Amino acid sequence: MADAWLTTLQTATPQEGFELAIKLARMGVKYTQPAADARDRLRPAYADDVNALIASSQVIAINYQTVAAANDYWRKG
Amino acid sequence: MADAWLTTLQTATPQEGFELAIKLARMGVKYTQPAADARDRLRPAYADDVNALIASSQVIAINYQTVAAANDYWRKG
Amino acid sequence: MADAWLTTLQTATPQEGFELAIKLARMGVKYTQPAADARDRLRPAYADDVNALIASSQVIAINYQTVAAANDYWRKG
Amino acid sequence: MADAWLTTLQTATPQEGFELAIKLARMGVKYTQPAADARDRLRPAYADDVNALIASSQVIAINYQTVAAANDYWRKG
Amino acid sequence: MADAWLTTLQTATPQEGFELAIKLARMGVKYTQPAADARDRLRPAYADDVNALIASSQVIAINYQTVAAANDYWRKG
Amino acid sequence: MADAWLTTLQTATPQEGFELAIKLARMGVKYTQPAADARDRLRPAYADDVNALIASSQVIAINYQTVAAANDYWRKG
Repeated sequence: MADAWLTTLQTATPQEGFELAIKLARMGVKYTQPAADARDRLRPAYADDVNALIASSQVIAINYQTVAAANDYWRKG
Repeated sequence: MADAWLTTLQTATPQEGFELAIKLARMGVKYTQPAADARDRLRPAYADDVNALIASSQVIAINYQTVAAANDYWRKG
Repeated sequence: MADAWLTTLQTATPQEGFELAIKLARMGVKYTQPAADARDRLRPAYADDVNALIASSQVIAINYQTVAAANDYWRKG
Repeated sequence: MADAWLTTLQTATPQEGFELAIKLARMGVKYTQPAADARDRLRPAYADDVNALIASSQVIAINYQTVAAANDYWRKG
Repeated sequence: MADAWLTTLQTATPQEGFELAIKLARMGVKYTQPAADARDRLRPAYADDVNALIASSQVIAINYQTVAAANDYWRKG
Repeated sequence: MADAWLTTLQTATPQEGFELAIKLARMGVKYTQPAADARDRLRPAYADDVNALIASSQVIAINYQTVAAANDYWRKG
């Protein structure tokens, strides 16, 4: 994947940090399954699957730990 | 998602921090499945599914690690 | 949930901290499924399900990381 | 559970720390399913189930993070 | 596995760090199933399985926590 | 388990640390199912099971967090 999609973990606000965590979770899927059409085929399946939704939220939570630490938890925001 | 829903990770008490962790877990689901009616359809399914309940508690626990660290564990509360 | 159930993460001993971690795991379930009778219906199912028991122990372990850090691992206990 | 089973997270060696992590994992199960005969009934099931074994190892790994941090990773051992 | 494949956790950018986290996730699989042909057989299965994709993203996220900490979150990048 | 198999978490290189993380993951399984023949029976099953392979990689990743922290991420390597 030649494109630069991640140049910093710093964000202005906790919410932008959460959205970056979502991006990291999605990029983890994208690197594993690079074919966009395959990912698109799977999207309806997981969007209506409780376990997949909770699991997605979990990956976001793990990535958010990283992003939040990188921003010192926006303590001085 | 244009609305601001998260402006700080700081909370007054450990319990409010726990409730923020729940909110983060739910927002992780919401960003993944933005359609409210789809999420509503799924709610009865997971509310009576032991594994989904435990998995939900796990996502909350992971988010609580982040929120608790952000508040220095409310040590001087 | 109006009641105050969590006023501090500090505990006197590592064992009390472990028991607080269990409480946090249970509260994660309770916030997700607030109906006590629904939770009671589910209890027999998971108490005899190996995977649910291990998953429960995992949520406790994650919460214990938080509680132990909050107590500086009871190093001066 | 009135008995004192955990008075410290400090151990003499990394291996004793690992064994304490195993104990914590088991206690997480025990608090969730206090009936010894029920746990004994389940033991054969999970001891021959790959997923349960890996999941058990995962809970131990999470608890070991806590124990290792509590011992400053036995750096001066 | 005699080959040296990991000499440092330091990377120049957060994105290279993410790619290293992916490599660590893959090496975890490779050490567990060293036979390349067996891994190749499994690839189509998981690339179209939502749960496997999310689980893969989760392992990457956990490894990324390690790599990001090793790089002090590229704060001075 | 009387034998000493873990005397230190310090390793010379990040790769040796990763291999120690694998050992910890395996020992977690071994303590849970001590019978070697039972583990051998299970090996073919999980080596061809995508979910078991990813789960194994996850346990390694969690243990690697511990080992990497114990080695201060080999920063002065």
